[in-house]
Formats: sequence, C-alpha cells, structure tokens
Amino acid sequence: MLGNVDIDNSECLLHMKKRELKPTTAVVPCPVVLLSVRGEERPNIITLSWTANVCSDPPTVAVGVRPKRYSHRLMLEAGDFVLNIPSSRQFENVVFCGTKSGRDHDKFEECDFTPIPASRVSSPMIAECPINIECKTTRVIPLGAHDLFIAEVVAVHVDEELFESMQESTQFDIARLNLFTYVPLTGEYWAVGDKMD
Amino acid sequence: MLGNVDIDNSECLLHMKKRELKPTTAVVPCPVVLLSVRGEERPNIITLSWTANVCSDPPTVAVGVRPKRYSHRLMLEAGDFVLNIPSSRQFENVVFCGTKSGRDHDKFEECDFTPIPASRVSSPMIAECPINIECKTTRVIPLGAHDLFIAEVVAVHVDEELFESMQESTQFDIARLNLFTYVPLTGEYWAVGDKMD
Repeated sequence: MLGNVDIDNSECLLHMKKRELKPTTAVVPCPVVLLSVRGEERPNIITLSWTANVCSDPPTVAVGVRPKRYSHRLMLEAGDFVLNIPSSRQFENVVFCGTKSGRDHDKFEECDFTPIPASRVSSPMIAECPINIECKTTRVIPLGAHDLFIAEVVAVHVDEELFESMQESTQFDIARLNLFTYVPLTGEYWAVGDKMD
Repeated sequence: MLGNVDIDNSECLLHMKKRELKPTTAVVPCPVVLLSVRGEERPNIITLSWTANVCSDPPTVAVGVRPKRYSHRLMLEAGDFVLNIPSSRQFENVVFCGTKSGRDHDKFEECDFTPIPASRVSSPMIAECPINIECKTTRVIPLGAHDLFIAEVVAVHVDEELFESMQESTQFDIARLNLFTYVPLTGEYWAVGDKMD
C-alpha cells in the first residue's frame, strides 16, 4: 500500500518535471490574421499573430506590429485597418503575406485576393476571408520590438455560408471556418480540430 | 463559354456573400490560459481568453481582465502573475476556473492543482499545466469593460515531457501539449488538431 503511494508520488513528480527557458513569447495557440490596410499607392496585407480580443465593451482588439514593417506606417496614416480571419483555404497566401514585404509586392494581386470596401473604415477588406473585422485605432503604445495598436471594432462581416442551413439562423457552424492557429514555440501552424465536449 | 463564365462569377459572388454583425470580439481562435496570482489569504486562478503575445523583445503579453473580477485586485496588489497554458487534461478545471469566483472558492484546492513557486515573480505557478509563463506587470490601461494588463515575460517553464525523446533536445513536440482554443463567436472550445503542411 505504502509502495503504491510512493510510486504514485514519483510518477507525479516525474510528470511535473520542468525545464526553464529564456523569457520568450510562449502564449499558445495564437490566432492568425491577415491585416489589410489602405495605402496611398495600393492597399497592403500583413500576416500577424500578435493579436487578441482584449475588451468586450467597446469591443476592442490589440495588435503588435514591428515599426520597420511596411504596414506600420500605412496603419498610422490610415488610422484604421481590417483583421481578416483566414481559413485553411488561404493558408498558402497567409505564409506569403507573412514573409514578403508590401514594398516589393502587390499582395492583393499576387494572392488573387479581392479588396472590397469596408462599411465604417477606409481600409479594404479581403473578400475571400470568412470573417472581416473593421477596426479604428484608438492608441499606439511602443513596447520595444513591436508597437501595440489598440483599436475599437466598428463592424464585423461574416460569410453567409458559416451559418447553419436554417434561414435567419444566427448560429455559426465553426467547423465551416476551417480555422488554424500559430504556435510560436516551434514556428508551426496547426489546424483547429474537433469541438471539446 | 460565356455561360460558363457567368456561372463561375455567380458562384464566386455567392461564396463571398457576407452578413454584417454588430461590432463584437471576433478574433478567432483564441488562446485559453489559467492566470494564477498571489493573494493575501490564498492564491487564485482565473480562466482568460483575452490574451496574446504582443511584443517579441522584450517578450511581452497583454491580458484583458474585468475590474469586477476577484483576480483584478489581486493582480494590482501582486504586480505580477503567471499565465499557465492548460492541456485538454485540465479542460474541466478550465471551465470551473472561468465560471466560479475566488471570493467563494479555493480554486487550487478544488481543482487539485499544485501551487509551486515561480523563479522571478511572487505569484505561484500551476504545476499540472505544461507551460508556465512568469509575467511582471508594466502598465494597466482601462479600455471599458476590461482593463488591459501589459506585462513583461521574465521566465518560462515547460514540462520536460514536451521535448522530443532525444536528451538535450530543444525541439518541442506540440502534439504532446494537447492544446485547445476558445471561439467567442459561439462560446465553444475546440481542440487543436493536426499540423498544417
């Protein structure tokens, strides 16, 4: 009996054995968004993962963007942006928009993305993304490598096909989104799988 | 030929048909964390999803917390907290810690969670969670329903069993984390599935 207790304890301690890493960005899993923003020459798109809903009322998002990124200046100039939530159908373009600069590329054209006007902001939305979140920047906070854009959500658009078949349904079928997520610890993208019970 | 083009176009427009919603927190999928914080009587745990990595250097997180939540005052008093990333093994406790108040419950005890000392902060870590992120609050920004805590990551701990079998390996096996994610549009939790290629 005592033997069993000892074994249980050691298994428990083994399970809890931890390794300390250098401080790093370890919140996982992370959302992946395609941020679209108006530009003088052409609109741009940037793939970002340092983002979250941070307040329910008024609905507010926060987005971390490196000052040296091309979109950073566009975001300051526009004062608004759209967070477009991609589905796995757009995965290849998500990688492209995260690794190429808008200085050298017309990302809407090269990704075959369709810019469509937003309702309340000057930046365009990406038609092909199933969710589009219109945001107006309210403040920008320098944090170091990234500046934090805090922005109020002023409109949200979702593809009709995300709703369950019943007409006038307001119930989303999340499986139809084919969402995926980013894991900075390994730099990998992982698909969202099944609903938890 | 022209007929085919017309059909293609209409399919395309059908696919892009959008519905506008009231402004809401629509960034998906969201991480789920168990925030642990020191308290005068006892430490507390709160389940949160309004959180993200927001800066790489110094590694920084942002966390939205309602001022009326019991942990809000504890976080102000402690000046630090730990973000514990749960695996699906802790799912039941994640729901418990998100719906019960620390005013009425000793959540460490009721969840059978083990508080262990952190390296650099005064708040305890949850031993059973596979990743523990020690954070020191640098600023608190009122946004409305939620206050935004911005905090520097000062240490990260991960379970040894997350590393691939090779000794001294620094390569994580993300599948061993059994991560899950929160989708505020439906209030559902969804498991992380397979790696994207």
